[in-house]
Amino acid sequence: MLAERVAADEAGYTRPFVRDPGRALNIGLLGMGVVGTGLIQALHAKTALLQPRVGCPVRVKSVLVRDLDKPRGFQVARGLLTTRPEDVLNDPEVDIVVEVMGGEHPALEYILAAIEVGKHVVTANKEVVARHGREILARAHHHGVQVRFEASVAGGVPIVAPLLRDLAANEITSIRGIVNGTTNYILSRMAQQGLECGEALAEAQRLGYAEADPAKDVGGMDAACKLSILCALVFGVWTKDLEMHRQGINGLARRDLECARELGYAVKLMASAKKVGGVVYSGVYPAFVPEGSAIAQVDGVLNAVEVETDLAGPLLFTGQGAGPSPTASALIADIMDVALGTKLSTKAMRGALHGEAAKVGRMADLEAEHYLRLVVADRPQRLTEVRRRLSDHGVESSFAMFRELPQSDSKVEVVVMTRRAKLASVQQALSAMQKAGAVLEVGNVCRVEEAR
Amino acid sequence: MLAERVAADEAGYTRPFVRDPGRALNIGLLGMGVVGTGLIQALHAKTALLQPRVGCPVRVKSVLVRDLDKPRGFQVARGLLTTRPEDVLNDPEVDIVVEVMGGEHPALEYILAAIEVGKHVVTANKEVVARHGREILARAHHHGVQVRFEASVAGGVPIVAPLLRDLAANEITSIRGIVNGTTNYILSRMAQQGLECGEALAEAQRLGYAEADPAKDVGGMDAACKLSILCALVFGVWTKDLEMHRQGINGLARRDLECARELGYAVKLMASAKKVGGVVYSGVYPAFVPEGSAIAQVDGVLNAVEVETDLAGPLLFTGQGAGPSPTASALIADIMDVALGTKLSTKAMRGALHGEAAKVGRMADLEAEHYLRLVVADRPQRLTEVRRRLSDHGVESSFAMFRELPQSDSKVEVVVMTRRAKLASVQQALSAMQKAGAVLEVGNVCRVEEAR
Repeated sequence: MLAERVAADEAGYTRPFVRDPGRALNIGLLGMGVVGTGLIQALHAKTALLQPRVGCPVRVKSVLVRDLDKPRGFQVARGLLTTRPEDVLNDPEVDIVVEVMGGEHPALEYILAAIEVGKHVVTANKEVVARHGREILARAHHHGVQVRFEASVAGGVPIVAPLLRDLAANEITSIRGIVNGTTNYILSRMAQQGLECGEALAEAQRLGYAEADPAKDVGGMDAACKLSILCALVFGVWTKDLEMHRQGINGLARRDLECARELGYAVKLMASAKKVGGVVYSGVYPAFVPEGSAIAQVDGVLNAVEVETDLAGPLLFTGQGAGPSPTASALIADIMDVALGTKLSTKAMRGALHGEAAKVGRMADLEAEHYLRLVVADRPQRLTEVRRRLSDHGVESSFAMFRELPQSDSKVEVVVMTRRAKLASVQQALSAMQKAGAVLEVGNVCRVEEAR
Repeated sequence: MLAERVAADEAGYTRPFVRDPGRALNIGLLGMGVVGTGLIQALHAKTALLQPRVGCPVRVKSVLVRDLDKPRGFQVARGLLTTRPEDVLNDPEVDIVVEVMGGEHPALEYILAAIEVGKHVVTANKEVVARHGREILARAHHHGVQVRFEASVAGGVPIVAPLLRDLAANEITSIRGIVNGTTNYILSRMAQQGLECGEALAEAQRLGYAEADPAKDVGGMDAACKLSILCALVFGVWTKDLEMHRQGINGLARRDLECARELGYAVKLMASAKKVGGVVYSGVYPAFVPEGSAIAQVDGVLNAVEVETDLAGPLLFTGQGAGPSPTASALIADIMDVALGTKLSTKAMRGALHGEAAKVGRMADLEAEHYLRLVVADRPQRLTEVRRRLSDHGVESSFAMFRELPQSDSKVEVVVMTRRAKLASVQQALSAMQKAGAVLEVGNVCRVEEAR
């Protein structure tokens, strides 16, 4: 069947899912932290639901752990646990390797080893997929196995499969969203309670919404990994998270959220990628989002992804972006999909296999309105001077106000909303103004999102 | 392969998608109205995108129309058009029959005929699927072909496939949403502009958002068909739209929307189904939705579907629920899915094939808070009397207010918010009160949705 074979080749997958008659579907699990334990619990609770849908029992055959004796939230037979990766990866009875250990290494090596011996792989690992997705998919293609990663972006919110399947007929021009629940919780609390970032972070840590080391969340690295995967799926380009325009929320002050509210905006850590004139721009940054827009309403630990399509119009997917149960929901969907032999034919996979389909631009070169909070000397005509100097660098302003600073009678705060300009121009203007003494301090610069 | 066969049987489909090598994927189209024309245009515009994803060219082979000479929005070769259904249904080269003629008959007969001769079917027809889904799926199962209907619910918003695939590991306890854009537009305009229902409808008709005969939209029949399909997918029960609890928006007055706003609610035509104690309750009705909730923000012609799941938590899908392009997006996703041989194993299909999985209850027996707008005689203690008489029937009230009516000095308007009570009890109370002369007129009764 030539037509069939061509379809399979394009999808990158040719190996059908074949099991011995009557045998269970065997899962080899790499990692049994919070996510792994959640998956085992969910698989256990859903036995009766899954068996008829998959066509055979779904069984966890072996679990790679670091410490056999560590107490865990869910009791599994001691015989399933192993500290030797080869017990999982080289077990001929394991059909699907599910990787939930997290981190770049050795997860990458284990995934590649599983592919090498012909096992399908389901992973929740955003770092590995974002940084090595191209290589992983190429190896999977070569070995005729499937790799799925729905759980790596936006947790329990279906987004990978909808992009690849439900929206496959669409050209997507933009995808943006809130893909980190920790920072969204912090920003929501800063806005609602007037907290400083550090105070809201400490609260999030007490409530278990933020990890002891919050750097990846707060600094935007987590969101950048997820955006990198979305970019690959939508535009066929792999922009590594580390090379992506990235600004965390740690520079935000309570004062910025007050200004936002006064001006009719919410502040959200946006992960955004769009294609303009054949060039893909992507970045993670705290953004001023118009208060009336749907994405501004997304509060707390929720995630939301907004997609602009040519046929279906704008779409918004909202739900829980993290946590063991939502992640288990996504992992099991992928496991079932692999078990049922579903083929996903994707631009992303073509992009990964056959080269990049679009050019990658610098986010700083994509025009937008900007919010600027500056400290300037308190002298006559200060607003006029700031606006004039910005204008000298091609940055026009649509609004400016000043406020006296409580601790100073020689300095004032100036807030400016610019017209559309490149961040690069704004930064040039500000650094020239600092050099000239026209600006004493740059409080913050935030991109303003367009309303949809 | 026993395991493989069991899976396929459960999925209801055993026939692989097989085409002659090198041949195109041939579509036989039933109907070339707005939706059919939109699909042909989209397939034409997306040739380069689809071919590599499907693995062969996708071609419209023949189109059933009523009138060969009718001018159409998109030019197709005259030779493709036919007025004889058998030219499409009995053409051995047609792989997939796409039904976009709408209406119950003869669409049902054509779909069944296509299945009978072994063709896969993709349809956008909510009436046919809602009323005959069980039979259609059973016949498809028998003949080993696929039937897909993503476009029949919420247009361009992916919801059928996400329920069947992405959320397959979840128990769903509730699904509700706004699935009729016409009425949502009307309600938005009534709320924003203070229009009466008829005025907003006339405006919607002028703008092309409502049909010349708006009865199915305004009366809630369209939404009931979509809800019926969702109910089958989620709970495995086929509640026919005509047997479903259904209240349209035609009874709503501008005054009801004013009251809603004063009390902190938006009014939306909700399609809602939930499972409580093993019993499924479903209905379409104008609801008071708390203003802060996500679904209250969904304005204009947008659709939104909210799903409560046990693992993934609450999820919200928002987008364009109608129009030729969004519908084409959903139809093409289904066509590609069928072409790639994707199997969907679903509760719904099992429910349809193997009997109902849950009991069906009457929506009027499911407790909720209610909004009541009544006209009563203007006499002392009128609020106390209304509340006492409601209470006599087991309906307690949490709030009541009265207002003088501009045209009368002998009657006043009373607005009551009840505590949780069955609609059946509310109706009994009101009819007893009318009989006793304690209520002169029932302006409206609306269910209050719980916030999420």
